[in-house]
Amino acid sequence: MMEVKPRARLIDYDEKAEEKVATAARLCYSRQGAEELQEQMSREEKEELVRKILDLGHYSTLEHAYFAFHIVCSRVTSHQLVRQRVGVSYSQRSQRYVQEDGFSYIIPPSIKRAGGQVLKEFKEHYQQSQELYDRLLAEDVPPEDARFLLPAIKTNLVVTYNARSLYHFFSLRCCSRAQWEIRGLARQMLKQVREVTAVLFDKAGTDCEVKGECPEGELSCGRLEKIKSDEEED
Amino acid sequence: MMEVKPRARLIDYDEKAEEKVATAARLCYSRQGAEELQEQMSREEKEELVRKILDLGHYSTLEHAYFAFHIVCSRVTSHQLVRQRVGVSYSQRSQRYVQEDGFSYIIPPSIKRAGGQVLKEFKEHYQQSQELYDRLLAEDVPPEDARFLLPAIKTNLVVTYNARSLYHFFSLRCCSRAQWEIRGLARQMLKQVREVTAVLFDKAGTDCEVKGECPEGELSCGRLEKIKSDEEED
Amino acid sequence: MMEVKPRARLIDYDEKAEEKVATAARLCYSRQGAEELQEQMSREEKEELVRKILDLGHYSTLEHAYFAFHIVCSRVTSHQLVRQRVGVSYSQRSQRYVQEDGFSYIIPPSIKRAGGQVLKEFKEHYQQSQELYDRLLAEDVPPEDARFLLPAIKTNLVVTYNARSLYHFFSLRCCSRAQWEIRGLARQMLKQVREVTAVLFDKAGTDCEVKGECPEGELSCGRLEKIKSDEEED
Amino acid sequence: MMEVKPRARLIDYDEKAEEKVATAARLCYSRQGAEELQEQMSREEKEELVRKILDLGHYSTLEHAYFAFHIVCSRVTSHQLVRQRVGVSYSQRSQRYVQEDGFSYIIPPSIKRAGGQVLKEFKEHYQQSQELYDRLLAEDVPPEDARFLLPAIKTNLVVTYNARSLYHFFSLRCCSRAQWEIRGLARQMLKQVREVTAVLFDKAGTDCEVKGECPEGELSCGRLEKIKSDEEED
Repeated sequence: MMEVKPRARLIDYDEKAEEKVATAARLCYSRQGAEELQEQMSREEKEELVRKILDLGHYSTLEHAYFAFHIVCSRVTSHQLVRQRVGVSYSQRSQRYVQEDGFSYIIPPSIKRAGGQVLKEFKEHYQQSQELYDRLLAEDVPPEDARFLLPAIKTNLVVTYNARSLYHFFSLRCCSRAQWEIRGLARQMLKQVREVTAVLFDKAGTDCEVKGECPEGELSCGRLEKIKSDEEED
Repeated sequence: MMEVKPRARLIDYDEKAEEKVATAARLCYSRQGAEELQEQMSREEKEELVRKILDLGHYSTLEHAYFAFHIVCSRVTSHQLVRQRVGVSYSQRSQRYVQEDGFSYIIPPSIKRAGGQVLKEFKEHYQQSQELYDRLLAEDVPPEDARFLLPAIKTNLVVTYNARSLYHFFSLRCCSRAQWEIRGLARQMLKQVREVTAVLFDKAGTDCEVKGECPEGELSCGRLEKIKSDEEED
Repeated sequence: MMEVKPRARLIDYDEKAEEKVATAARLCYSRQGAEELQEQMSREEKEELVRKILDLGHYSTLEHAYFAFHIVCSRVTSHQLVRQRVGVSYSQRSQRYVQEDGFSYIIPPSIKRAGGQVLKEFKEHYQQSQELYDRLLAEDVPPEDARFLLPAIKTNLVVTYNARSLYHFFSLRCCSRAQWEIRGLARQMLKQVREVTAVLFDKAGTDCEVKGECPEGELSCGRLEKIKSDEEED
Repeated sequence: MMEVKPRARLIDYDEKAEEKVATAARLCYSRQGAEELQEQMSREEKEELVRKILDLGHYSTLEHAYFAFHIVCSRVTSHQLVRQRVGVSYSQRSQRYVQEDGFSYIIPPSIKRAGGQVLKEFKEHYQQSQELYDRLLAEDVPPEDARFLLPAIKTNLVVTYNARSLYHFFSLRCCSRAQWEIRGLARQMLKQVREVTAVLFDKAGTDCEVKGECPEGELSCGRLEKIKSDEEED
C-alpha cells in the first residue's frame, strides 16, 4: 500500500493538430479542396489562421485534433472526470476484473495539513480496508463485491479528448472553485498540450483568465476582481 | 446508518411516447405535416406503426420519447451508470456539498450469503468508516476530502433517458453478465416502462431474448443455448 | 407548387419542466430523496430555485426538460439545423421515400425585395425544376436520384430538444449574424417556450442580450454597443 | 461547370491506432500502468489483443483511434452524412461565405443509364441553375440567398471519425440498401482504413457480412440468404 500523487501524462497527440484545424477552417471558407490547402499554407499562415479561429470563437474545427492522456487519480475524481460526455473517450481500470491487492491511494492536502491523529487514522483506515478486502477475497467473495468496502483508491485511465472538449474541460476544471485533485490534473494537462502546440491552446483556461468574466456569480472566488485590478495598475 | 436496497422508480414519463414516435416516423415517410398526422392516427394505427419501426430497427424516432427515473444505488454502480453518454442526462447527489452523516449502504448478496464473520466485519467496517468520517469533519476536514475514506455508500440520482438510449441500456445491463446491482436496476426499469407503454418496449432486453444472439462470444453465459433448446422443444 | 413561410410549432412539451429541473437540482445539494423533494416545494420555491440555477450557470439540470417542435423550413436550413448534435433528436421527411410532387418552397426576403425580373426568374426556376423532376420520375428515374436536381425546397421535421440544448441553440441562432431563416425559427421557438414556462428561459437568447458580451469579435454586428449605450442612458 | 465523382480520401490517421486500442484494453484488465503496457507488448501481442476485443464486442476502446477524411460528394449526401452525431466531427464548405461560381456536380448513375433526353435535360438544368445563380449575384442578391435555387451540387468536407463511430458508419452505409453515393463513399473509406491498419477493421462492414444477420427485416435485399447458401456450398 502506497501513497501516490494524482498525475496526467500526455501519451499521444496529433503532431499535425494545428495544421488539421487550419485546413478544416480553410476548407469551410475557400474554394480549394483540402489537399491543396494542406500543401499551400506555411507554418506562419497556419498559426495565424488558428489564432483567428480562436478569436472568432469558431471552435468546431478544433474537434479534428486529438490528445490522449494516461491519468492516475482517486476514484472520487475519476467519477467526476467521466461525467464529461462529449468529444471524449475513457478506458478505466476495472475493479470487477482486476483485484486491488496492494492498492495505492491519494491523501488529500487538508488531511496532510491536519497531520497528527487525523493523518494517522486516515492511513490506518486504508490499511484496515486493504486487510478486510484481502480477507473477503480469501473467503471467496468476488472482487466485484469486495470492492464495495474500499475507500477512494487510486485508479488508472486512458482518456482521449479532442481540442474542443479539452477547452471545455479546462474552462471548468482549471477554476479555483473546482475540486483540488481534478484542478491539479487539468493544470498539468494544459501545461503539456501547450508544450506540444504553438498557438492552439492560447485561449484555454478559466473564463476569468481568458474572457475576463466569471460564470460562478455569487459563488465567485474573487480572482476576476484581482485580475482586473492588476490590469488597471499596469 | 442503514442498509438499503438498490431501486429505480419511474418519476416522470411521456404519456404520448408512442404517439410521438409514430408521428415522427410517419412524418419521415408521408406527405402530410406533423399536425395532421397526430390527429389522424387511431391508437391501433399508432401501435401498429411503432411495431413496424421496431421490426425494421429504425430506432432513431424513439429518441423523441423520454423517461425519468429516481435511482438509489451504491456509488460503485453510479460510477458505471454515468458511463453511458448518449441520450441520457444525470443529476447526482454531491459529496462535496452534502455531508454524508448517517449514510445508508448496500450489502452485496455474496456478502449476505457468506454471513457470519464476513458479514459482521463488513458491517463493522461501514460503522467505523462513518465514525472516522464524522471525526474528520469535527476536525474541520472539508466534506469533499473526508469522503475519500468512505466505502461505496448509497447515492441518489435523477436520470432521464430517451427510449432509444433505454434500449441500449437494457441490452447491455439486463444481461446476466452485467454486475448484479445494475442488472437489478435495469430489470426494475424495464418492467416499469413496459407498464406505462403498450408496445414501445416490446423488443427491449438482452440480445439473447430479443434477437436470439449473444454478443459476448466465448464469455457467453450459455443462456442463449438454453433459450434455443427450449424453443426447439415447443 | 406553393410558397410557404418557415415556421416552428411547439407540438409537445414537459408540463413539469421547471419542477423537474428544480427537483434534480435539489437532489444534488440536499439529503432528501427525489420523491420527498417533488412534494415539498411550492411553485414559488421551484421557480426561485430555477432562477438560482440559471444565475449560477449550473445548466446540466436543464437536460431533464424536453420540448418538441414541428418545423417547416427550406432544405438549406434543415442542413444547418441538424448540425447541432448534442441533446437533440431529429426526424425529417425523406426525399428517398416520399415523392416531391407539388412541392412548396421558401422565397428569401432579398429575392422578394429585389422583385421584378429577379423574383420572376426565381419562381420560374422552381416551376421548371418541378416539371423536370416529374418528367424524370415518368422516365423511371427513382425519386432518390431525381431529387438531385431540386433546388432548396420545403422540408418537414420533428425536432426534440432538452432545455439545455435549446439554450445553446438560442445563443447561436437568435444572433443577428445567424442566417435569416434559422434566426426566424429560433425566435419563434424562444417565444413559444417562454409562453409555456414561468422562468426557465429567462436567460435564453443571444450573448449580447443575456450576458452583455459578444463572441463574434471583429465580426460583431454592433448590437452590443447599442444595448450598452441604451443602458447608460437609462 | 464540371461533373465530378464522389470520393473520400484518408488525409490523416493514427499510426498507433492499434497500439492505442490495445493499450487502453490492457489498462482496463491489468494491474500495470499505461506506460509500461505500451512498451511491453509486441506487435503480435497487440494485434492478438485487438482481435480479442473485436470478438468480444468491447468496442469502447476503439474510440481512442482517429481517422480523418477529405470527402467530395453532393449536398444530398452531405445532408445524410452529417446526421451521424456521435464520435465524429465535420467541417463543410460554406455556401454562405463561398460563392459557387463554376460549381461541379455529381450525375446519379440512373440518370447516366437513362442517357439521351433525360441526361441532356439534367445537364442543361445544372447549366441554367449556374447562370441564374450568377445573374442573381450580379443583382446583389447575397450568396446565402442565391444558393436556394441551386440543385444538389458538389460540396467538400473534412470528417474525423474514431474507429468505433467508423464501425457504426460502415455497418449502416456499406449496406446495399443505403443510398448509392454514400455507400460508394463508405466502401472507399473501408478499403483505405484497412490498408493502413492490420486487424482493426477486420469486423467492419455490413451485418450480413460480419455477423451473418440482417437488421432490415422485410426490407432485406436478400444478400444474407445468398451469403448463407454460398457458405453451405463450401
